[in-house]
Amino acid sequence: MEIIAIGGYNEFGRNMTEVKVGDESVIIDMGIKLDRVLIHEDSDLSTMDSDELVKRGIFPDDRFVQGRVKAIIISHGHLDHLGAVTKFTDKYDVPIYATPYTAELIKAEKRYNRGFKGGERVVSVQPGEIIEVSPNIKLEFVAVTHSILHASFVALHTPEGVLIYANDFKFDDTPVLGETTDYDRLMELGQEGVKCLIIESTRVMEEERTPSEDIARKLLFDTLSKADEDSGLIVTTFSSHLQRIRSILDVAELIGRRPVLLGRSMAKYSGIGEKLGLIKMPKTTSVYGSQKAVAGILKNINSEGRENYLIIATGHQGEQDAILSRIANREFDFRIGKDDQVAFSANVIPNPMNRANRYVLETKLRIQGARIIKGLHVSGHAAREDHRYLLRVLNPENIVPCHGDLLMLSSYAELAESMGYELNKDLHLIRNGQKVVI
Amino acid sequence: MEIIAIGGYNEFGRNMTEVKVGDESVIIDMGIKLDRVLIHEDSDLSTMDSDELVKRGIFPDDRFVQGRVKAIIISHGHLDHLGAVTKFTDKYDVPIYATPYTAELIKAEKRYNRGFKGGERVVSVQPGEIIEVSPNIKLEFVAVTHSILHASFVALHTPEGVLIYANDFKFDDTPVLGETTDYDRLMELGQEGVKCLIIESTRVMEEERTPSEDIARKLLFDTLSKADEDSGLIVTTFSSHLQRIRSILDVAELIGRRPVLLGRSMAKYSGIGEKLGLIKMPKTTSVYGSQKAVAGILKNINSEGRENYLIIATGHQGEQDAILSRIANREFDFRIGKDDQVAFSANVIPNPMNRANRYVLETKLRIQGARIIKGLHVSGHAAREDHRYLLRVLNPENIVPCHGDLLMLSSYAELAESMGYELNKDLHLIRNGQKVVI
Amino acid sequence: MEIIAIGGYNEFGRNMTEVKVGDESVIIDMGIKLDRVLIHEDSDLSTMDSDELVKRGIFPDDRFVQGRVKAIIISHGHLDHLGAVTKFTDKYDVPIYATPYTAELIKAEKRYNRGFKGGERVVSVQPGEIIEVSPNIKLEFVAVTHSILHASFVALHTPEGVLIYANDFKFDDTPVLGETTDYDRLMELGQEGVKCLIIESTRVMEEERTPSEDIARKLLFDTLSKADEDSGLIVTTFSSHLQRIRSILDVAELIGRRPVLLGRSMAKYSGIGEKLGLIKMPKTTSVYGSQKAVAGILKNINSEGRENYLIIATGHQGEQDAILSRIANREFDFRIGKDDQVAFSANVIPNPMNRANRYVLETKLRIQGARIIKGLHVSGHAAREDHRYLLRVLNPENIVPCHGDLLMLSSYAELAESMGYELNKDLHLIRNGQKVVI
Amino acid sequence: MEIIAIGGYNEFGRNMTEVKVGDESVIIDMGIKLDRVLIHEDSDLSTMDSDELVKRGIFPDDRFVQGRVKAIIISHGHLDHLGAVTKFTDKYDVPIYATPYTAELIKAEKRYNRGFKGGERVVSVQPGEIIEVSPNIKLEFVAVTHSILHASFVALHTPEGVLIYANDFKFDDTPVLGETTDYDRLMELGQEGVKCLIIESTRVMEEERTPSEDIARKLLFDTLSKADEDSGLIVTTFSSHLQRIRSILDVAELIGRRPVLLGRSMAKYSGIGEKLGLIKMPKTTSVYGSQKAVAGILKNINSEGRENYLIIATGHQGEQDAILSRIANREFDFRIGKDDQVAFSANVIPNPMNRANRYVLETKLRIQGARIIKGLHVSGHAAREDHRYLLRVLNPENIVPCHGDLLMLSSYAELAESMGYELNKDLHLIRNGQKVVI
Repeated sequence: MEIIAIGGYNEFGRNMTEVKVGDESVIIDMGIKLDRVLIHEDSDLSTMDSDELVKRGIFPDDRFVQGRVKAIIISHGHLDHLGAVTKFTDKYDVPIYATPYTAELIKAEKRYNRGFKGGERVVSVQPGEIIEVSPNIKLEFVAVTHSILHASFVALHTPEGVLIYANDFKFDDTPVLGETTDYDRLMELGQEGVKCLIIESTRVMEEERTPSEDIARKLLFDTLSKADEDSGLIVTTFSSHLQRIRSILDVAELIGRRPVLLGRSMAKYSGIGEKLGLIKMPKTTSVYGSQKAVAGILKNINSEGRENYLIIATGHQGEQDAILSRIANREFDFRIGKDDQVAFSANVIPNPMNRANRYVLETKLRIQGARIIKGLHVSGHAAREDHRYLLRVLNPENIVPCHGDLLMLSSYAELAESMGYELNKDLHLIRNGQKVVI
Repeated sequence: MEIIAIGGYNEFGRNMTEVKVGDESVIIDMGIKLDRVLIHEDSDLSTMDSDELVKRGIFPDDRFVQGRVKAIIISHGHLDHLGAVTKFTDKYDVPIYATPYTAELIKAEKRYNRGFKGGERVVSVQPGEIIEVSPNIKLEFVAVTHSILHASFVALHTPEGVLIYANDFKFDDTPVLGETTDYDRLMELGQEGVKCLIIESTRVMEEERTPSEDIARKLLFDTLSKADEDSGLIVTTFSSHLQRIRSILDVAELIGRRPVLLGRSMAKYSGIGEKLGLIKMPKTTSVYGSQKAVAGILKNINSEGRENYLIIATGHQGEQDAILSRIANREFDFRIGKDDQVAFSANVIPNPMNRANRYVLETKLRIQGARIIKGLHVSGHAAREDHRYLLRVLNPENIVPCHGDLLMLSSYAELAESMGYELNKDLHLIRNGQKVVI
Repeated sequence: MEIIAIGGYNEFGRNMTEVKVGDESVIIDMGIKLDRVLIHEDSDLSTMDSDELVKRGIFPDDRFVQGRVKAIIISHGHLDHLGAVTKFTDKYDVPIYATPYTAELIKAEKRYNRGFKGGERVVSVQPGEIIEVSPNIKLEFVAVTHSILHASFVALHTPEGVLIYANDFKFDDTPVLGETTDYDRLMELGQEGVKCLIIESTRVMEEERTPSEDIARKLLFDTLSKADEDSGLIVTTFSSHLQRIRSILDVAELIGRRPVLLGRSMAKYSGIGEKLGLIKMPKTTSVYGSQKAVAGILKNINSEGRENYLIIATGHQGEQDAILSRIANREFDFRIGKDDQVAFSANVIPNPMNRANRYVLETKLRIQGARIIKGLHVSGHAAREDHRYLLRVLNPENIVPCHGDLLMLSSYAELAESMGYELNKDLHLIRNGQKVVI
Repeated sequence: MEIIAIGGYNEFGRNMTEVKVGDESVIIDMGIKLDRVLIHEDSDLSTMDSDELVKRGIFPDDRFVQGRVKAIIISHGHLDHLGAVTKFTDKYDVPIYATPYTAELIKAEKRYNRGFKGGERVVSVQPGEIIEVSPNIKLEFVAVTHSILHASFVALHTPEGVLIYANDFKFDDTPVLGETTDYDRLMELGQEGVKCLIIESTRVMEEERTPSEDIARKLLFDTLSKADEDSGLIVTTFSSHLQRIRSILDVAELIGRRPVLLGRSMAKYSGIGEKLGLIKMPKTTSVYGSQKAVAGILKNINSEGRENYLIIATGHQGEQDAILSRIANREFDFRIGKDDQVAFSANVIPNPMNRANRYVLETKLRIQGARIIKGLHVSGHAAREDHRYLLRVLNPENIVPCHGDLLMLSSYAELAESMGYELNKDLHLIRNGQKVVI
């Protein structure tokens, strides 16, 4: 069995891994690196070809792919795992496997990458099913909790043993929406024996268990239920985080404000969620995706009385083309008023461009009189104690940390060492383009 | 009305304020500055006289006191508000007013400061009562939530208007134990008119509402309920924080471990709490205050099976003479075993000595095989949005920020400016030894 | 005597102070706040009117001006002291006084702010001259060292005593270029008695003497003399810092590379410096200001052999329209080659936009193969020990810290307190729009 | 050829490496980890045996040693390279090779570790000599610059090629005292071919050339020459850093103060330096090593007039038993006076205990009225550009980074990758106890 690092082993982002058994191989995840899009401001993902995107470090470098690819497997619906799939997959005339919500998100990507012809190759797989993807490789998704619904571990059953790809996850037993992690299946797999674990390392330095989404829910309730009743209230969060949006909708109901979702990606993620029955929004909710529709409702809110609305908008990282930044730039017939409350239900993803964008956004909002509210967030990534727990359950023979820069990978390695693993023996640090043979 | 800054206006700690009306005055709080005790390692508070303690910056400098003191008022039971009272008050033959739990804590201080003769001058006052402390000054405690029970705002009713001393507090509507803040009374006072607000500034830079103690409770439950069943489990937290201890006791019950409270101050605070009926501990709980008793039970736990116990110990800041540090130093017949879990339900109070003490403690524990768990904490201090809320409720004519260094005080000033106050007009930055005349 | 804070008392940037004696007043400095230009990306200083620029926080708010203005005095040529002068001064039909290099820079501003009609009102004054600017106010510039030539303290001689405005300076006895500080005159003024000192607070937190420019020179020599001989070498620094440019030119000579200055402001500052005889550039030096000229020479260098040149370019903060950013964006017929060396002789001015711009610039350069070299810089602002020295020399009766946010001002206040001053008595913290009466 | 990591590959400190050729091996460096001594406050290096010191993480774990040890080689005289040698070497009845100053320091260690019998095995070797230490291994020291005199690279000439151990160094062409790096020999070795480079990684993250010691000298001159003439002046720095002490002595002469060196290690390092003719101290200099002598001279200085002296004392890290801490604790008949100047010519070595010790020291000094002066320092370790230069000169076939935690080692790996090396192929990250076979 060979594990080939394509992307995400030198950096946080653009995840892509190849697993090869004999000469058959599968690719797991095809993500993008968003901060590289911010660095190259002229990047247009819909029109640029994949070679240019590889060159800019936005796409993983698929020239590293070595085997005869039999399948593409997507672990969950975040862009750093799925964003490159509609550009890349037409090269590979193979099925694309994903859990139902993820599968729908891949198909929906088609709209924005017009050339994508692979929609019919997308196969929706329920967690628990076992699918033969090639003579030597069977695929199983194991349900886990994360900051998006239908996240999964990817288990590959091969003649050389079971490989588990655990990227990304948290252990959340009160996830607000959706199923909890399938602990029983993880324990079974652990008892049967796991040959290799490929594991995210993003938050392994945090010596804690990652708090439940229910904590974010309570923070939202405690804080927003005391919001100033006479002023505007805007909350911004991840469009793909339906659990979080569920809580915000519930707060809106409690405090008697009409929820309004604004932005193209807000419409996309919640629309697919509703279609699959994953979230049911209150009747009072309205959703505006197109720029024209957003402009219309904001004009209405501005004139009718903002105190009756709770606006849920894109733009938590200060993205320059998101709704919140455009509000701050006064691009709509909507004015931030003195004491309007703008709540960030998301932390700054730590890179200098996000910090600058957020600072610019917050400064503009403050100049116009807004009050900024922060802290309404919990992470979606496992922390050190969660990782320890997973290692005890799976007890893998080999470990390959992924999804991080060398510091994150090294920190995971130190945890593994403390639990008896040894570097270069059963614990492997590899870089994009390198492989481990097990 | 004059407000005279005695201590806590140049620093975080040793709070002491004099309020003078005519030539009558009252003193509010008499605290110590704990990090100065750490700097002067040879400081012995029980034997040193108050002049030396002033000189070392541990005690506030009461030579700044100007009026004829009619009463001493203690807002709550933390050492940075109460620690100097047993040394200082014998100078002033006046009553010492405090809420019931605080009053008992003052009396209990007598044991450790043997010379203290003022116990009989301590007057326990219920929140809501109004007491005449001098011809021109009436005292009222208003119940607020904080990280200790029976915390209060001090309201002084004078011919020149009402002064409110709000140091320390948070707004917590699910405080686990004890009453919530008396919002009704605050609103009444606001409507009647508040001449001056003296207000803590510790966390005004945090743009949030401070999370409820209920969040800490859920974090404790989620994390400790997944603790390794076969290993030891030690939790360390603030001895005076009975709400937190309540939650830890409840987790112990849930996971079937016998709770054991260790340390002199653990015994003091919980004992007084039980005596006043503020906390009822499960029958399985045992409390060991003296060094001998602690040594005995630890020896038993070591031999009998640590997996049956949940140890609640002093030492969250790595204090060198606390139980947890002494365990790490192997001073007891108790050995930290591989995978024993040590959970910190407290953040490091930010100064270099605490950081070093914690680092030393954690390193020693790790060398012996312990797993460190952090993040099980929420603050007891109001954040920016809480402060904004309070200003809207009280709408004070004048503001004097306290309990902070110049950065904290200045940050409060910037908040007040954003709400219409003006520096040196109705917003006053003063330093220890200075006064404001209103 | 009244000191009225117009700008720079709430922030770092947009310095402007009014000093009023009777009903006569003078304005000292009229600067802009550059990071507000970065926040409002659509800001165009040449076309926007001053009201809009005030609203955006780029210009100081001159509605705070109270007296009958008799003169405008500019302390030195940096944009945060001089940038607003060509927009603002046409309102005031009064002379604009400045030292010679500063005076020329003001006149040169005319080119870029076409409406400026005040060029003929600019009066060049030598340090040491005493000029009567109104019946009650005489002006004197005292030469000091700073990161621009002809920097000065502004001394106002009035019937109520001498006021000294010390914003900005450092004490540098080996300044590479230009005169050292006129210590003798400062001592004289101190002995005669200084009524009030208005003093910058930017680096008062640094417990040191600010290193001499000669240190930067040696760092440049040690580092660049070991540059890879076969690769390109680009140095970026402050265009206005002729001392620094002098050193870079001298290194170029030493290592046998032809120096090329690129960028509009490089041309402006060095051109005026040469015209006044302040700097004499080696004959091999060439200067290209216009975009077309820059494009031409870069194309030549690219084809002829970059190893023969030392490029000195604008763009040390990653400014998006500066030469270095445009090189990184491949806007010229010039390609960064593998191992080309890009040396930053400037620190990041600490705000999130600069950090992001620098990060973007450095990342793009690295992707193209460049080596980044940092650390070739010393500050131009006085540190704590320099401030202490100045206070001992001048021994002012009153102190008003300026040029900083509340933290910087407060830190200066703490220094002054340690030397015997008392807040609100002879030490005054004021905010934009407020005044001190002395 | 095998490189076996004994110590310093998981951490900064306790350097020890074994190099094995056939079954012969040599050990390079035997250092201690000083922060572990601070953690275990009861550690007494003179009385504890080496097993206990290994267990505490103070000594490297020499159970990892695999070959038949033929020689011990010490690269330079710092404790993290030499501190364990007097405890460890009696196990190995083999010669101990070192450059002259280092050799004398090893012999001097005997005094404080009384059991040391190996003094007669210490062999002083001049840089440039080639010594046969076993049939297959020849040893050569190559002179390099560092923050101690007689630092060296260790070159091992073997049948399998040349190995170079480069730990620690900087490239300083104006080192104030002592020889510069032998660049010619490094180039020769590079041209002959280097099989393997073992290389320190401490400062590889800094994108600069490390400044010359001459910069520290100028900072000292600029700052101390403006010291207040009427007050005391204490400078603290590394006792082993004779180049730095040379500069301080020269400043003392310039400003007419008598230099006084205080502290046991001040006496040791300067004494050996004088004996070997490496430093010649001015006649006015006096040196006091014993506590009694120090107490005597401090009493004299206190009474006679401190303004005539420049005290050079141990204690730059706030070590609790060093002279400066004891002065701050008032253990001598010497009082810090108002405005006495205490200059730190050393940065805080970054760990929490040093930060706390320094904070405690500075706070005590400030309370007593002292002015603290910082910034008078440059590092002794190579930065990124120096490392790049070395790689170009030596062009080694294999690289093994050492002297750092995983982050530092990983950062070096990233530099090496940017220059064409590949992880796990010709670039090796190993941990204490692991080996690389080349």
